[in-house]
Amino acid sequence: MHAEMRHDPLQRRWVIIAPERGIRPTDFTTRDDEVEEFDPFAEGNEQHTTPEITAVRKPGTKPNTPGWTVRVIPNMYPAFRIEGELNRRGDGLYDSMNGVGAHEIVIETPERFQDIPQLPDEQLRTIGLVYRDRIIDLYRDRRIKYAILFRNHGRAAGASLSHPHTQIAAMTVTPLQIAMELNAARAHYHAKERCLLCDMLVQEKQQRVRLVQETEKFVAFCPYASRFNFETWILPRNHMYDFRKLPDEDVREFMLILRDVLDRMQGALKDPPYNFILVTAPNTETHDPRPAQWSTLELDWHWRVMILPRLGSLAGFEFGTGFHINSTPPEQAAELLRSVEV
Amino acid sequence: MHAEMRHDPLQRRWVIIAPERGIRPTDFTTRDDEVEEFDPFAEGNEQHTTPEITAVRKPGTKPNTPGWTVRVIPNMYPAFRIEGELNRRGDGLYDSMNGVGAHEIVIETPERFQDIPQLPDEQLRTIGLVYRDRIIDLYRDRRIKYAILFRNHGRAAGASLSHPHTQIAAMTVTPLQIAMELNAARAHYHAKERCLLCDMLVQEKQQRVRLVQETEKFVAFCPYASRFNFETWILPRNHMYDFRKLPDEDVREFMLILRDVLDRMQGALKDPPYNFILVTAPNTETHDPRPAQWSTLELDWHWRVMILPRLGSLAGFEFGTGFHINSTPPEQAAELLRSVEV
Repeated sequence: MHAEMRHDPLQRRWVIIAPERGIRPTDFTTRDDEVEEFDPFAEGNEQHTTPEITAVRKPGTKPNTPGWTVRVIPNMYPAFRIEGELNRRGDGLYDSMNGVGAHEIVIETPERFQDIPQLPDEQLRTIGLVYRDRIIDLYRDRRIKYAILFRNHGRAAGASLSHPHTQIAAMTVTPLQIAMELNAARAHYHAKERCLLCDMLVQEKQQRVRLVQETEKFVAFCPYASRFNFETWILPRNHMYDFRKLPDEDVREFMLILRDVLDRMQGALKDPPYNFILVTAPNTETHDPRPAQWSTLELDWHWRVMILPRLGSLAGFEFGTGFHINSTPPEQAAELLRSVEV
Repeated sequence: MHAEMRHDPLQRRWVIIAPERGIRPTDFTTRDDEVEEFDPFAEGNEQHTTPEITAVRKPGTKPNTPGWTVRVIPNMYPAFRIEGELNRRGDGLYDSMNGVGAHEIVIETPERFQDIPQLPDEQLRTIGLVYRDRIIDLYRDRRIKYAILFRNHGRAAGASLSHPHTQIAAMTVTPLQIAMELNAARAHYHAKERCLLCDMLVQEKQQRVRLVQETEKFVAFCPYASRFNFETWILPRNHMYDFRKLPDEDVREFMLILRDVLDRMQGALKDPPYNFILVTAPNTETHDPRPAQWSTLELDWHWRVMILPRLGSLAGFEFGTGFHINSTPPEQAAELLRSVEV
């Protein structure tokens, strides 16, 4: 059985039923401190992964052989597959469709124990360019409505392999949470003719208490209503709605502030498990005609990265209400992160 | 600093900043297999907890002394406090208010190593009555808009103490997720003049593939779009919008089906960490006049319990999109749960 998307009429959300990812109860018994013995993402083990989609390689090396610095492959246990029809169907009260889309892995270094904080500037720039160019390529498929790039670091953050990698999931629906954010940004714009996240940056730069780092083109801060302890967002300082628009010359600076924030978290929190998530714009070219609610998207939306350290456990309260409880005021988190010597 | 609620204008959700629950990075380093040495919830240790709100006691015993079977206390590290004004205020783009409300703990047995699966029927009935009566009492406070009852079992599910207990959080706002569910249920009712969850039960009883257990008054099934592996919901078979309306004579049966499902999970999954969450109606008496959108609440809403085993980790994908990936089709989960001998 391939992955299937199912819709809940009460909670009005889709869920992905992906049984290939493990069905038996024993599949769930991984321990936090377990390190897998075999590293399929290491240089030399290319034959043990799915065939590569693209790679940054030394001239003259062949696909699926050593000689690469960044390598992109399809996820072996995908939540979404590129082949097939959506096949939207009803089942009484319920709705389902096939898990059509793409689910890719960006292997960020041939070295297993070299993570973002250890990587040289040029390698980081290469990774950033791959992030951007994969999203550009995936959005060429007009079935794709939204692509999210996310990184799980540490088992408590959902990582199943320790070799540094990031994932990209491209979907045929705009996720409910993204749709709600798009609505909020649009409503703010229509009321004020200003971008909500630009307004947030103005306030953060005035108050300064939640700032973590600033560079010429980017700002990192702990959001006022942080869901997670030490949650940090990185935004382009000037309005930019779509990560695909990030110019080549700014990619390095973006990756360097990302590394700077991760360095600070490592210093303050001792290699915490974390997720980072790139929230970009939906694929406006997928719709013809373009939906009316996206008429001001270029003006009202602003891409960002959210870094979410996973220090506590989510509990029944969060899953019942959607409310998060955060024990670190973001002002204290930012102060501690600023104080780390990088 | 007491708990404060803060609102995010982009994600349009409240978050609770509760620094009393632990600020320093070292507060986050609990290990999964760690068992706390001292049990403040044990009989005889009443002086080490906050003073009890109520307790089911042997006649003649005094509050905050031994002799109880179920005991209710305020959470020592509350997300909400009963005293004080809401003090709604703005801070530039952002909004905050005080964490006014209640945060209680129901200690379900004097015995630390006796959990719901081991408790006798009569003790379970007593616990169920306490659940119901605490919500009835909390809803007498007209500032309270919603109360959620939830149980965290196991560290991976957010439990910080192993002694069996359940929590009740009573809030001055209706959480966004509950408001969205209320909207969905109302829209269904207005279109069809039928309760959405009653319709779900009809379909589940016809298809049978997701049923886990049925009793005269209650049905347990794995929902079609389960977010979590082996997620199971328990609903009253006949329409009932508010858990407060559960008659005394049905409380035992409700607690027995809850124990039955937990027994099945223990048998199938070897004492998994889990959350259970009682989703009841909002406090309609808090509003004068009652909001128009709740005009059919008694007809369109249906209380339920959600049991969420916490077998996998949530990762960046879930936090970026709100989508969950579930590797166990609910039909397979229900089949395995049905097959357990209880």
